[in-house]
Amino acid sequence: VMARIRAVASAPESLVDGPDVALVLPELDASTLEAVAPAIRDAIRDQASLNETIISTEAGQERVALLRAALKSNDPDGFIVPMADEYQNEYVPRHAQRLAWLSGFGGSAGMVIVMADKAVIFVDGRYTLQVRDQVDVDLFETKGHDQVGKWLQDNLQSGQRLGYDPRLHTTNGLAALQGAVEKVGGLLASVTDNLVDKIWQDQPPAPLSRIVLQPLEFAGMDHAAKRVKMGASVKDAGAQVAVLTGPDSIAWLLNIRGADVAHTPLPLSYALLGMNGAVELFADPRKCDDALIDHLGDEVRLSAPADLDKRLTKLGLEGASVQIDPARCPMSIIDILRETGANIIEKTDPCQAAKAVKNDTELAGAGAAHRRDGLAMVRFMAWFASLGPGDVDEFGIADKLLELRSMGDHFKDLSFPTIAGSGPNGAIVHYGASLESNRTFNDGDLLLVDSGAQYLDGTTDVTRTFAVGTPRAEQIDRFTRVMQCHIGLASVHFPVGTTGHQLDVLARRPLWEAGFNFAHGTGHGVGSYLGVHEGPHNISPRAGGVPLEPGMIVSNEPGYYKTGEYGIRCENLIVVVPSDRGNDGDYLMFEPLTLAPFDCRLIDPSLFSAAEITWLNAYHQRVFDTHAGDLTDDERAWLQSATAPLGD
Amino acid sequence: VMARIRAVASAPESLVDGPDVALVLPELDASTLEAVAPAIRDAIRDQASLNETIISTEAGQERVALLRAALKSNDPDGFIVPMADEYQNEYVPRHAQRLAWLSGFGGSAGMVIVMADKAVIFVDGRYTLQVRDQVDVDLFETKGHDQVGKWLQDNLQSGQRLGYDPRLHTTNGLAALQGAVEKVGGLLASVTDNLVDKIWQDQPPAPLSRIVLQPLEFAGMDHAAKRVKMGASVKDAGAQVAVLTGPDSIAWLLNIRGADVAHTPLPLSYALLGMNGAVELFADPRKCDDALIDHLGDEVRLSAPADLDKRLTKLGLEGASVQIDPARCPMSIIDILRETGANIIEKTDPCQAAKAVKNDTELAGAGAAHRRDGLAMVRFMAWFASLGPGDVDEFGIADKLLELRSMGDHFKDLSFPTIAGSGPNGAIVHYGASLESNRTFNDGDLLLVDSGAQYLDGTTDVTRTFAVGTPRAEQIDRFTRVMQCHIGLASVHFPVGTTGHQLDVLARRPLWEAGFNFAHGTGHGVGSYLGVHEGPHNISPRAGGVPLEPGMIVSNEPGYYKTGEYGIRCENLIVVVPSDRGNDGDYLMFEPLTLAPFDCRLIDPSLFSAAEITWLNAYHQRVFDTHAGDLTDDERAWLQSATAPLGD
Repeated sequence: VMARIRAVASAPESLVDGPDVALVLPELDASTLEAVAPAIRDAIRDQASLNETIISTEAGQERVALLRAALKSNDPDGFIVPMADEYQNEYVPRHAQRLAWLSGFGGSAGMVIVMADKAVIFVDGRYTLQVRDQVDVDLFETKGHDQVGKWLQDNLQSGQRLGYDPRLHTTNGLAALQGAVEKVGGLLASVTDNLVDKIWQDQPPAPLSRIVLQPLEFAGMDHAAKRVKMGASVKDAGAQVAVLTGPDSIAWLLNIRGADVAHTPLPLSYALLGMNGAVELFADPRKCDDALIDHLGDEVRLSAPADLDKRLTKLGLEGASVQIDPARCPMSIIDILRETGANIIEKTDPCQAAKAVKNDTELAGAGAAHRRDGLAMVRFMAWFASLGPGDVDEFGIADKLLELRSMGDHFKDLSFPTIAGSGPNGAIVHYGASLESNRTFNDGDLLLVDSGAQYLDGTTDVTRTFAVGTPRAEQIDRFTRVMQCHIGLASVHFPVGTTGHQLDVLARRPLWEAGFNFAHGTGHGVGSYLGVHEGPHNISPRAGGVPLEPGMIVSNEPGYYKTGEYGIRCENLIVVVPSDRGNDGDYLMFEPLTLAPFDCRLIDPSLFSAAEITWLNAYHQRVFDTHAGDLTDDERAWLQSATAPLGD
Repeated sequence: VMARIRAVASAPESLVDGPDVALVLPELDASTLEAVAPAIRDAIRDQASLNETIISTEAGQERVALLRAALKSNDPDGFIVPMADEYQNEYVPRHAQRLAWLSGFGGSAGMVIVMADKAVIFVDGRYTLQVRDQVDVDLFETKGHDQVGKWLQDNLQSGQRLGYDPRLHTTNGLAALQGAVEKVGGLLASVTDNLVDKIWQDQPPAPLSRIVLQPLEFAGMDHAAKRVKMGASVKDAGAQVAVLTGPDSIAWLLNIRGADVAHTPLPLSYALLGMNGAVELFADPRKCDDALIDHLGDEVRLSAPADLDKRLTKLGLEGASVQIDPARCPMSIIDILRETGANIIEKTDPCQAAKAVKNDTELAGAGAAHRRDGLAMVRFMAWFASLGPGDVDEFGIADKLLELRSMGDHFKDLSFPTIAGSGPNGAIVHYGASLESNRTFNDGDLLLVDSGAQYLDGTTDVTRTFAVGTPRAEQIDRFTRVMQCHIGLASVHFPVGTTGHQLDVLARRPLWEAGFNFAHGTGHGVGSYLGVHEGPHNISPRAGGVPLEPGMIVSNEPGYYKTGEYGIRCENLIVVVPSDRGNDGDYLMFEPLTLAPFDCRLIDPSLFSAAEITWLNAYHQRVFDTHAGDLTDDERAWLQSATAPLGD
């Protein structure tokens, strides 16, 4: 599944990527995760009705009126409502869905500004149509995310003050806004009591899921060793302490997991990491049991979230050097550090890079999880191949995959709601089936299925595209090109120091050759029983990124989308490993983790090079060898035929 | 020829590229450029002896002693001598070769620091060996260019002052030094009277070549239109005036050329560009005649260089907003603007991007110049093919090429000294033949020839590699891969918005496949009767660069170098043009400008894809069709055979 982009202000429209997955998902307590498949299915299925308790176009008038009243009795002339919580995570829990509640907009990225006599919502190119459906256009202007500066220029008066909740904005995010506001002589004003929280009567509570241990047999490195290593990097940066505000970093560092947001086992929390490796974890005591306290040991102190401000103040008054990540740290924390005189050192959260390079245990776990996940995929495909056109709909596809995956050892959850897009729905890059859009299949349809799971030993993410009945020549041409793009990246050997940005063109050129492209990134990092999207590496046409290193897991997911007709995406997770080819330095290459066949009925072998045929045949042989022993006779026969060598 | 990198501090060693061309070249007055070939040949040939008047290892002791005496009677504790003049050009005129004169080092990039009791020279990876040959190692420590900070930390005392000439450093360049110096508690001190100039008794005078007009028939756009357009961009940047410190920008903007440095027709000068398009050009009146004054007209005021400081002071005192390019503007200018209170706006020199996109006249000129240049290349190749192994040496190759090129219309100069590297000399990426290194050819040698010319209507740059006698299988394999790299880039169709950094991998993958690479960029921009290296676009593994646009000329020069044995490089200039392939937006592609055959004796067609064979055959057909009518019967017969289709 493609990474979506949180930052409204910085994402170029043509390159915005990411699934339009449900925003408002119920949180499942980790302790209740038994016989989970039905619970997960029902949770995802009920999402639409759950959303209705929060999202309402009709309520917009009343809610905006309430906010305007709150503005009047408070200081600022306007209030900014971003699509973000205080952890800057991909999935925002229900109580923090302030933008959705206020406006009715259910997309995954956006920003609202409400002033006394006007209101505006900024969304990126993915949501141009959806936003007009979901918000009251008499109430909100709808604008592109690149129009923020222009809108402020036209609508903000010199001297006017725009309020913002400092917990929900980072330094980097605020800097862009600040420039635009100051250009027209306005001011940004920190509002520590969120005005939406004041008026949202039935705002759900913040999640309170139990924090559980991630055993060493899956984590591979104990948290003491991780803390010492990360502490040393804090010292190297010239800081005494780092503020960790990313729950994924904290989960990795302390070998803990939670269930505060859907599909990603995050314990929402902040932490302070000292240069000696000591940690203070700020988490609600109701989330913590004795086993956790025992696991954390003497060098990890557990404190109430309310204590963080005190601790930051003390650090500041001592003139301590404090490291923060300007892309992730809330302004509320920066404000305290600044006001109390801390020496702020801006540097990327050190856990991000360390977490991205999987250790041997995590790699072994990823392999095992992908064998289980691949087996579920193969069994799903054999089942799907046995059906007639009208036998199943998109919901049925998702249910079957969930059922098969949940039979696997260590299964905990899906890693995102399954995208099963049939026919024209497959062309909607961020599709999620609804009762209105759900459809069965006709002869000539393609079915795009992007799905994945959370296992204790690894996170998976795989996309396959299937022909229903007899595919058309055009579909075969496009699918063949997408496969050439996939193989182009999968088979490269490259020198150490190369970034995913440099390699991205390899996953596009066979499409470019015919004047086609896909408007999303080619690959995102993937966690180890953590986020299905993580950095800092990627495979992307956007500038930036870090050199690829052995042990990094990344997706390889080129696609082609024909609006109103069909969508194609071919996605494996792949891992960076050493290559022995280098004659003038060290070289790297990719190994596939995902083990499930591609639909050869959609491939024209005459367009393939000999090297491409060799790659696909070797991959299919490996898929067959991996799963053959775990299948029924019927399933094995199907797999044998599906993985028969091309070009024979 | 590969672009070389000026900035010592910022160039990663593995990616440093650029020819080790002669640094100290005689300047030819443009007015004497008649029957130029012998003059150019003699000038280049005499370079070694000319260099000796400046460069001397033995004189180092005396010269450093003089500098130390100057340090004593002046303020600072040390003095920084960079390899740069006040125009930050690729070619540095003789009088500004302070680093070479002081140290004896003749490379194209480096930095010297002399203190009372120590001296150090920093060079990049290309020069690790050369620097130890050329400088007195008892006098100078020799260090890598990435060791500046470390050296300062070990050798500079807190409170010590390092002097620098503010004309020779840019804001960007100085910022890196400043950080390192301040880290150890030292200070940078501006020294406006260069200490080397004070002690260099027979320092040559600054060049004083006549400024000539570049006629509209070659420039394609009159300078009034350019000035209005560039003035508008200054206004858009919020500035009233821009300081232009790049002679290439000034030459392009005013349609003028000079002869102040070797091989690039630059008029060394500064200029002020107002937002209304008015220009004040600061150039020695002895360089200017009535024709020039007439050409410049009423809106371009000619002033003496000495007047610039006054003008900057006035702007500052008026509180004017002044645009400067932090990558190119000398600190001496910034200092005046700061001291007098100007509002400094940092922005890339607007002429750089405008100059890179050639207009229709310039493109037609480039085509015509490349036909002439290709004809000279073809005639050279036919001649070379007729020789036996001992018939010619590297100097002879360069002489013959110069002779043939100088017969072409509008020929003015070479665009750089011809690189003719035979056998192991070809593996030295920045080779320049000397009396000691010069050699003839043996059976099994490869000959690498990188050469180009300055024509009034265009600048050329082409590299071909030839087999002498019977090539070995390994040489054929490597050459074939380099050609696959060349074709990989040459044949791509890509969406608008793509940078050369994104495409670079296409010119490397066939080498990577076998674990080989080349340690220089793939392509650099090329001027229109201007610099053979220009930006802002390139094709490079280094991050950065701008999207490619129709009308940009760039080189395509992958290579392979086996130290001690042979070198291969295959270089065409190519121009970005629209492609009609785009189905989902506008696409671009490349057209070759260079028209000369590649040596098919070095190609194994069985390694080529069908598309690669098609590309090469079509290119060779075009080469034949272009030149056939202008050749002797013998030459035509040779070309017909050299361009015979592969795979027949």
